[in-house]
Amino acid sequence: MAFPQIPAFAGTPGVIRLVGHRGARGVLPENTMEGFEFTLKTGVELLELDVTATRDGVVVITHNHHLTRSMVRDADGHWLQGAEPKVSALSYAELQRYDVGGLDGASAYGRRFPDQAFLTGLRIPRLADLLALLQQPQHQNVHLLLEIKSDPDLLEAPPARQALVEAVVSEVRQAGMQPRTVLHSFDWDLLADCQRIAPEMPASFLTQLPENADEVGEDSSKAVNPVAGCTALDLPDRVAAAKGRFWCPYYLDITPDSLARARALGLITVVWTVNEPEDIERMIALGVDAICTDYPGRVQRQLLMHGLHWRTT
Amino acid sequence: MAFPQIPAFAGTPGVIRLVGHRGARGVLPENTMEGFEFTLKTGVELLELDVTATRDGVVVITHNHHLTRSMVRDADGHWLQGAEPKVSALSYAELQRYDVGGLDGASAYGRRFPDQAFLTGLRIPRLADLLALLQQPQHQNVHLLLEIKSDPDLLEAPPARQALVEAVVSEVRQAGMQPRTVLHSFDWDLLADCQRIAPEMPASFLTQLPENADEVGEDSSKAVNPVAGCTALDLPDRVAAAKGRFWCPYYLDITPDSLARARALGLITVVWTVNEPEDIERMIALGVDAICTDYPGRVQRQLLMHGLHWRTT
Repeated sequence: MAFPQIPAFAGTPGVIRLVGHRGARGVLPENTMEGFEFTLKTGVELLELDVTATRDGVVVITHNHHLTRSMVRDADGHWLQGAEPKVSALSYAELQRYDVGGLDGASAYGRRFPDQAFLTGLRIPRLADLLALLQQPQHQNVHLLLEIKSDPDLLEAPPARQALVEAVVSEVRQAGMQPRTVLHSFDWDLLADCQRIAPEMPASFLTQLPENADEVGEDSSKAVNPVAGCTALDLPDRVAAAKGRFWCPYYLDITPDSLARARALGLITVVWTVNEPEDIERMIALGVDAICTDYPGRVQRQLLMHGLHWRTT
Repeated sequence: MAFPQIPAFAGTPGVIRLVGHRGARGVLPENTMEGFEFTLKTGVELLELDVTATRDGVVVITHNHHLTRSMVRDADGHWLQGAEPKVSALSYAELQRYDVGGLDGASAYGRRFPDQAFLTGLRIPRLADLLALLQQPQHQNVHLLLEIKSDPDLLEAPPARQALVEAVVSEVRQAGMQPRTVLHSFDWDLLADCQRIAPEMPASFLTQLPENADEVGEDSSKAVNPVAGCTALDLPDRVAAAKGRFWCPYYLDITPDSLARARALGLITVVWTVNEPEDIERMIALGVDAICTDYPGRVQRQLLMHGLHWRTT
């Protein structure tokens, strides 16, 4: 199948693509409309984002399954105390009471992003809000790497997992955004659901080898990522066998050989999340298709220094 | 005179003010509407900017007297070659041919801001463009530290220098922005003109001691800054003697004693340009009124970690 999404993410001579990770997490709060709007203003046309659903079935853009103390304030403006509520246990209206405009600098997660601006009154957006923005004519070239978060509490409940995929696909189709959306997950079973339910959208297979630790303050995705026992070089074949079109390895896992193998298999390779200058240099030297980063300006600069660009036009 | 601008820049218990330097130069191209809009979105209410005039008398927002190779592209998208045209020798229409959307990473100036986003098609704005933005109701609390650039070629031409002050003041008055504007310069003679022509706006005296070198890639302002032979501790008295209300020292020059002296004299002290975490910490510990920075998010984070804020509301 000739997916129109593929050329948007494929590197070409002179071009390595740039994907804004959760918008531009190094600059503005992640997975917010404010962050996405900024990223688009800087000429970045590929956005990575995470979705899950509320109790009342609204697809919302947020990474963790639980509202997380280090990045969520309550209605009184205080960092969350006590138990961290689960997004899927709240209605969309309840979710709107929380402020996701900044990070707690005292937290390990906050310390990872010391330059992130601190805003007040930001809300977790609906997927529909972002899709509406992208239907504006000036954003017609923007494509999405849409990560569906797999709820570890639902691993044994295939119908509930499938219901989330159906809700996401339905939103994307309603907005006519299928030709500009790639469905992305660590959960390969869920990606099989995506391929069946939405064959018009390529599936993007995230991988992270167990030997490379999770980054501080992230929800772990290991439980659902079937790569234990794999080596870097096994991964592209595993993705191809699952009929994946995108392979998205953790940047510490990729090697020249595994990239060459991915290329031979016709996969698009998007590495994440590449933030340090020396790591960005290594990914440029490897020649990946796309770099997913929290610091789009930094990657733009380094690409330009190599005579490369992140867009073909 | 009770200037309404003063409380907007004055520190209070729990508050150190944050001034976005040329917008947010660490994040987006300096002195552009895009940079100012971003800075305002992050909840920063004090903007520093630089103005000069075109050949046809349009007041424009730009720092250097000459279009500078490291940050200006020509109509074909190439970094400037050959002689760098002088802004005052170009008409506003001619100026609009140049693109100020990014830095050349190969230049010393570009290397200072490795995270700055690279945009295409950005133009040098008119002062009138920014003033119009700030008249929108959501920006009613925004105040300007408006630096008038003193043309070294006009040091012996007082009428031409005065004409620039008059043009700037006229624009500010036309927009009704006098109560929210502070006139700022390294050129103390020009500030005397400001005080005479626009007594409703406080004058802000920039200082930089000769022993602390210019930062790389900046137009030097030393020629017009009458502080040779001064010590840090002399500076506040010099400013007060010139009837300045704001003292804006280079951050390496300020000492606890000179800040105490400034406070005793009733001056507002705004330090510039403070970007490194350890320097930001030192300015917070000193307890200046305001910190002018290229990285507003970074200063926000460090203020919050000290239980401080940059706004009273």
